[in-house]
Amino acid sequence: MDPIRYRQPPNRAEPATLLDVARLAGVSPSTVSRILNGTARVVAEKRQAVEAAIQKLKFRPNLSARGLRSGSTHTIGVLTQELESPYFARAAKGVDKGLEGSGYAPIVVPGHWNPREELERVGLLTARKVDGLIILGGSLSDAQIAELAQQQPVAVTGRHLTADGVFSCYQDQVEGARLATAHLIRLGHRHIAHIAGPMLHVDAQERKQGFLQAHSEAGLSVDPALIVEGDYMESGGVSAMLRLLESGHRFTAVFCANDQTLWGAHLTLYRRGLRVPDDVSLVGFDDLPQSEFMTPPVTTVRQHTFEMGQATARALLAALGVETEASALDVPAIELMLRETTAAPIG
Amino acid sequence: MDPIRYRQPPNRAEPATLLDVARLAGVSPSTVSRILNGTARVVAEKRQAVEAAIQKLKFRPNLSARGLRSGSTHTIGVLTQELESPYFARAAKGVDKGLEGSGYAPIVVPGHWNPREELERVGLLTARKVDGLIILGGSLSDAQIAELAQQQPVAVTGRHLTADGVFSCYQDQVEGARLATAHLIRLGHRHIAHIAGPMLHVDAQERKQGFLQAHSEAGLSVDPALIVEGDYMESGGVSAMLRLLESGHRFTAVFCANDQTLWGAHLTLYRRGLRVPDDVSLVGFDDLPQSEFMTPPVTTVRQHTFEMGQATARALLAALGVETEASALDVPAIELMLRETTAAPIG
Repeated sequence: MDPIRYRQPPNRAEPATLLDVARLAGVSPSTVSRILNGTARVVAEKRQAVEAAIQKLKFRPNLSARGLRSGSTHTIGVLTQELESPYFARAAKGVDKGLEGSGYAPIVVPGHWNPREELERVGLLTARKVDGLIILGGSLSDAQIAELAQQQPVAVTGRHLTADGVFSCYQDQVEGARLATAHLIRLGHRHIAHIAGPMLHVDAQERKQGFLQAHSEAGLSVDPALIVEGDYMESGGVSAMLRLLESGHRFTAVFCANDQTLWGAHLTLYRRGLRVPDDVSLVGFDDLPQSEFMTPPVTTVRQHTFEMGQATARALLAALGVETEASALDVPAIELMLRETTAAPIG
Repeated sequence: MDPIRYRQPPNRAEPATLLDVARLAGVSPSTVSRILNGTARVVAEKRQAVEAAIQKLKFRPNLSARGLRSGSTHTIGVLTQELESPYFARAAKGVDKGLEGSGYAPIVVPGHWNPREELERVGLLTARKVDGLIILGGSLSDAQIAELAQQQPVAVTGRHLTADGVFSCYQDQVEGARLATAHLIRLGHRHIAHIAGPMLHVDAQERKQGFLQAHSEAGLSVDPALIVEGDYMESGGVSAMLRLLESGHRFTAVFCANDQTLWGAHLTLYRRGLRVPDDVSLVGFDDLPQSEFMTPPVTTVRQHTFEMGQATARALLAALGVETEASALDVPAIELMLRETTAAPIG
């Protein structure tokens, strides 16, 4: 019912070359080249002959070679980490939106948080002469990024980086976590659990730090048994919440290191017949688009992920001297979105 | 608090050329070229000198030019539609997974269901000499795709297409919708609404057709007032469900044209105090990863989106003669995932 077909073409034609076009049009190769570059001052007849030959031969100029000559390929390379991650997809969409109407197109490659792979994939982009490079998170070192900026302007999210040719865009992770936790404390919660992200990620460490800081500011101590590690995925949230419930340690609220973790944690509570926010309050982190449409809609820390992507695109366009209607773009500070998964504790 | 910085580098170095490398190494440019291509038989000394010069000058060979010579750039171009769509992100992730370990990297560009933009973006890929092209959905014509396959193997999802050099991968949309609706009928529902997708999309038309077909097979008529149009997004599901509730027409179940629509529709029911599945049953379409973690987990039609992406990647690798452990990959037929948003109607 779901056919999968592949047939080898019997004789795939060799692509036409610029020389073929010149021959057919009866002009010199350099005339074809100048017409392609838009620098030609040639009589209309010749131009028409060349255009007809291009069409007939289905000639496709090598953009990369054109880029070498004109200094521009009108593409922006985007190194993302995980194509399916809603967080990274949102950032990439922001880049896409930021480039809209500029004549520049994004070319996206995934790096999977693997420094070697990230460098290889960036190499694929730069070898193809992208005009600018956007690096969404990941694990390249500051020095590697600064070096990349020697070749083309670079914009990077998720870190502070002061280097020539580098635009950096960062949202304060500690502050976001502090806001989320302080909100729970303000509601009266005194037994707050934290499902952390994988501790290899710097942002997971920073969010845990904000969780601790809010307690310390309120003069409260944290029960170490109430801090468990997830994996930033829904399934990790499911099992981390199970561990919390089975630990027997009392909690009335949970700060989840990201929204996907929260969705999974919520499912475990639902399975146990515990209601959100009546029995347990939940706060997430990221404000993924879906969180607004959950039942109930999720209280979470908004990262302005989309706006960060957009700002990186605009910064590169500005660096490339491309005029857009609103080149510069300020990314708002991280903030708490109050929705319906938090309430005062019972009793 | 969220600093955005861009500093123009004072004097960005001109990239080193192959000629610079040859000069510094004291060899001919063709020797450098042959070493880069891996075709050189040169004495170790010369090779070391060239490698040292490459490192010192930070020379980066133009991969695109190398591709022209060796016939391969080890990249697969992927035309997606919307970077942030969970459906397309899942398909792209499948491609990424399918290429894993093959030495081929995916390069992704978004086309936004706009035929002109899709063709331009594909042009960006093919001009850079990708070894193969994957087209995820979208609105290019069969003829355009067949033409692209004259230049490199092409794999396409979401349509039947028999053409030379084209691998096509399709999941039966009518059948999926028929399964979903028949399930509701089997549970005893006789007043079933449908929140359709945007009717410009062929798959939205097909899903509506499957909805009608299931009714017809069961000898049931459909109340036309119970078919409303959404937009495949959560917000469209929210408002479509509002329209259904306000229409005053009775329904006990809704077949939603995709999962995102269902999530939004569920939120509207929640706001009105209606429970799923106790008061209203819901079935979705796609089986996005999040649907399994919703409360309650969503009954939906699984599209095998990930597997389709993976299959396209494997098909291209096979066409390129790349041996992988499991080159061919069968995509399972579309199926209904029974979870917890459906139940027999009350009374």
